[in-house]
Amino acid sequence: MRHSSIKLFLIAVAATVAFLGAAGSFADTSTIGAPATPTDTVALSVDGEGYEETATGEHSDPFAPILLELALVIVFAVFGRWLAAQLNMASVLGELLIGVVIGNIGYHLQEPVFILVMHLDSVRHLFEIVWSNGLAITQAAPLVFSAEELAPGGIGDQIVWLFTHEGGGEYVTMTYALWLFSNLGVILLLFMVGLESSVPEMLKVGPKALAVAVVGVVLPFAMGFGTSILLLQDASTPAHLFLGATLCATSVGITARVFQDLKKIHTAEAKVILGAAVIDDVLGLIILAIVVGIVATGSLDLVEVGKIVVISLVFLGVAIVFGERIFHWIIRRTARFEKGWIKLLYPLTLALLMSWLASVLGLAAIVGAFVAGLLLKDEYFGEGPQFHMRMEELVSPLEKLFAPVFFVLMGMQVNLETMTHLDTILLAIGFIVVAIIGKLAAGYVVRGLDRLSIGIGMVPRGEVGLIFASIGKGLGVVNDGVFSAIVIMVMVTTLITPLALKWSLGRIPQEEPPTAPAG
Amino acid sequence: MRHSSIKLFLIAVAATVAFLGAAGSFADTSTIGAPATPTDTVALSVDGEGYEETATGEHSDPFAPILLELALVIVFAVFGRWLAAQLNMASVLGELLIGVVIGNIGYHLQEPVFILVMHLDSVRHLFEIVWSNGLAITQAAPLVFSAEELAPGGIGDQIVWLFTHEGGGEYVTMTYALWLFSNLGVILLLFMVGLESSVPEMLKVGPKALAVAVVGVVLPFAMGFGTSILLLQDASTPAHLFLGATLCATSVGITARVFQDLKKIHTAEAKVILGAAVIDDVLGLIILAIVVGIVATGSLDLVEVGKIVVISLVFLGVAIVFGERIFHWIIRRTARFEKGWIKLLYPLTLALLMSWLASVLGLAAIVGAFVAGLLLKDEYFGEGPQFHMRMEELVSPLEKLFAPVFFVLMGMQVNLETMTHLDTILLAIGFIVVAIIGKLAAGYVVRGLDRLSIGIGMVPRGEVGLIFASIGKGLGVVNDGVFSAIVIMVMVTTLITPLALKWSLGRIPQEEPPTAPAG
Repeated sequence: MRHSSIKLFLIAVAATVAFLGAAGSFADTSTIGAPATPTDTVALSVDGEGYEETATGEHSDPFAPILLELALVIVFAVFGRWLAAQLNMASVLGELLIGVVIGNIGYHLQEPVFILVMHLDSVRHLFEIVWSNGLAITQAAPLVFSAEELAPGGIGDQIVWLFTHEGGGEYVTMTYALWLFSNLGVILLLFMVGLESSVPEMLKVGPKALAVAVVGVVLPFAMGFGTSILLLQDASTPAHLFLGATLCATSVGITARVFQDLKKIHTAEAKVILGAAVIDDVLGLIILAIVVGIVATGSLDLVEVGKIVVISLVFLGVAIVFGERIFHWIIRRTARFEKGWIKLLYPLTLALLMSWLASVLGLAAIVGAFVAGLLLKDEYFGEGPQFHMRMEELVSPLEKLFAPVFFVLMGMQVNLETMTHLDTILLAIGFIVVAIIGKLAAGYVVRGLDRLSIGIGMVPRGEVGLIFASIGKGLGVVNDGVFSAIVIMVMVTTLITPLALKWSLGRIPQEEPPTAPAG
Repeated sequence: MRHSSIKLFLIAVAATVAFLGAAGSFADTSTIGAPATPTDTVALSVDGEGYEETATGEHSDPFAPILLELALVIVFAVFGRWLAAQLNMASVLGELLIGVVIGNIGYHLQEPVFILVMHLDSVRHLFEIVWSNGLAITQAAPLVFSAEELAPGGIGDQIVWLFTHEGGGEYVTMTYALWLFSNLGVILLLFMVGLESSVPEMLKVGPKALAVAVVGVVLPFAMGFGTSILLLQDASTPAHLFLGATLCATSVGITARVFQDLKKIHTAEAKVILGAAVIDDVLGLIILAIVVGIVATGSLDLVEVGKIVVISLVFLGVAIVFGERIFHWIIRRTARFEKGWIKLLYPLTLALLMSWLASVLGLAAIVGAFVAGLLLKDEYFGEGPQFHMRMEELVSPLEKLFAPVFFVLMGMQVNLETMTHLDTILLAIGFIVVAIIGKLAAGYVVRGLDRLSIGIGMVPRGEVGLIFASIGKGLGVVNDGVFSAIVIMVMVTTLITPLALKWSLGRIPQEEPPTAPAG
């Protein structure tokens, strides 16, 4: 069984990489790295109208590669989950690891979409500059990539080459589609997790969550600051501050999925972690404002910090105290507009709007989605054709399609190449140890619950840590080596969590019933 | 009731336009049309890293505007459907018309996203050139827009302005997201329609569908050719040929939705129309190859035409004869890989792959999605957690979310401005009359069914007609005035169909039971 599954897996990987390479125009892209001739306008198609049709009059659909791409991601996610089940691992780890494997194989075969996915941040940055400044890609590239990266054969050079040759539009479209589906997926995931809980349930664990969050922010910050002083003696105080801040973050997506996979999302442990993650997001914002203020102006901008505290507290406060009544009122007042699919479309709309609102206020969009889920109850809706189904059942198919895209894409962005530099690895090990100890200790402030599982659940840093680090890079206080070490720390904390959490949750038999339906 | 609904509607429109205008960065974009300074690199953000964070250290999520956008489209679709129900119109017409209203209001208020959506083809073309040729937006613009359009205040000038100032990246992202969701929506719609039928059911109506398709292609082609000779005496023979070809197309999305809305998708009439639309797509491809061959090389390229005929016949032939067995075999062989959501993920994957395959072969992607639906049966799946639900129930939530995006976006692209030029209108009226008569006559070749409804169901031209016309434009045989007339023809045939079809289907009481569950 094991042997045949590995064979099947290798065939699948080979087929996909070949497929994605051939997707759409079947253009030959194996010559990446050849000198770019960006201003060569002669390269344009003859009729000047031509991306829709070829000379023979066939019209190729620019959406076609996206269809193939989405299908392949589903196939890989299914296969990754199956492999994980065979090895008795959490499903989400299967999705992450399959992403790591295909991502790195495709990257080393220099398949365009894989290159762009691996360097998604740079590509998005380039995209943003090109569409806002009237610069050509070659002019914008030096603003995104270092001189070293732009040297022949460097990653910047490769990406510029891709975008100055036929097929570039298709590759950026395909990469963007993955980014879009994955973002939608993580929003839907946290919304579903929110639906399975309620405000009173969250308030019950409030004090515990607060304790976990505060310790889980203060301790990693202090330890990160110390580690930075110890290992990076040449770095400035702002650099130490940034590294400390990077270690504070908690990215709850992975943990939520593991609890969901193991059907433990209703346990008190899950609720403490979710509550602590929300509080962590607010604390992270405050720390970021403080650190950036110190770096940028040399002093603490109390007005800015005060603004963030007030806005966050008002958002969460209004949501907790009035949210349920507001949602119920909105649904009651507008229920007449939709008969058939009210229990699908209204919750989705409210989730999207709350995510947007959270995002506009500077919080993570997933916090908004989670809170929207907390506030919604099936009882708000009257009788109707879909009334026999619960909101969760209606939203589930959407989540089951898109959430795996998030985890596969996350895996695809793990660049195994960065793990080959010894200096970086040593630095990364230091960060990883601190990152894990800091959050595990946070779990131990709780009494009467499975402290170890709570601590492990807080460990993954995810994209939040990366955002902090990239801001530090932008401000010039975090250099490339340190940034790589942070990326490794984020990857490792993300990959070990499902494994560790599955073990720790299986360790002690739960006292409460395994599944207690919410609402 | 009517009065209050209009008030509510106006408030909603005002709120949305204001919202979308303010989405994301809250940038001031009211000065569109000011001279562009595209090479002004000084305009870049100070830290050169800066699209993720502002000076105060807040990190804005580039996905946030998309969350708001999707929420608003859902709200508008719900409201449009409700309005349509109040006025006793088909739901889909409500979605289209609300799209027309908000699209044109936003366009005239010069809101960036609305401008880009209205000129989606040009924006996609510009996008494609920028990412494949290393040209800056200002260099690429003359390849997409005419000199007149690029003159100050022209549409090309406005779009170039948008993309050379802050916020451009966000606007193109938002526009692209709508395009993506809408494409996914129409695929899901046709897949659902396919699920509600089967191969034997389609074969039963085969001869009738073939007759409708052939007459519905030959007659409009001949009449379009004649009308063109009559009304455009200066134009060349290739131009006449292209106009004839444009009138052959059938876009089945609208019709399928109306039948679905009215719960008549199981009627023989629906099946004749769907079958004829599939055949039409093949015939359209052949005609396009013939006409393009004549225009480009001056002679008929028989090899190319033969290739298309063989490929299409092989694809559809294999699907009809072996498809069910192949699908059943694939599902049986791979069922062990997915336990929980097999009845959601496997059908979706197969639908995406078939759409991609159809698209690669030159057929419309929706033909592939429809055929995939035809071939799938609930019986292929074994026992499992979701086995009590039918595939349709599991796919429905996805379709209910995304399909309306397609119709709202279609409405938003109807530019009422084009309806103000008298010459164009007269030409358009000629095309519209021919377009309607040609397809109505096709319906009348059928015996024993509701001929009028079949004829009306074949009337909408949709994007297929537009693709033909834009290829003609690319080859230089269709000028701007004629193109506008074709666009109006497409819009009118699209908008009147739901209205006419609802009337004609309500006219005669159906002989068969109103809903006969398939499979």
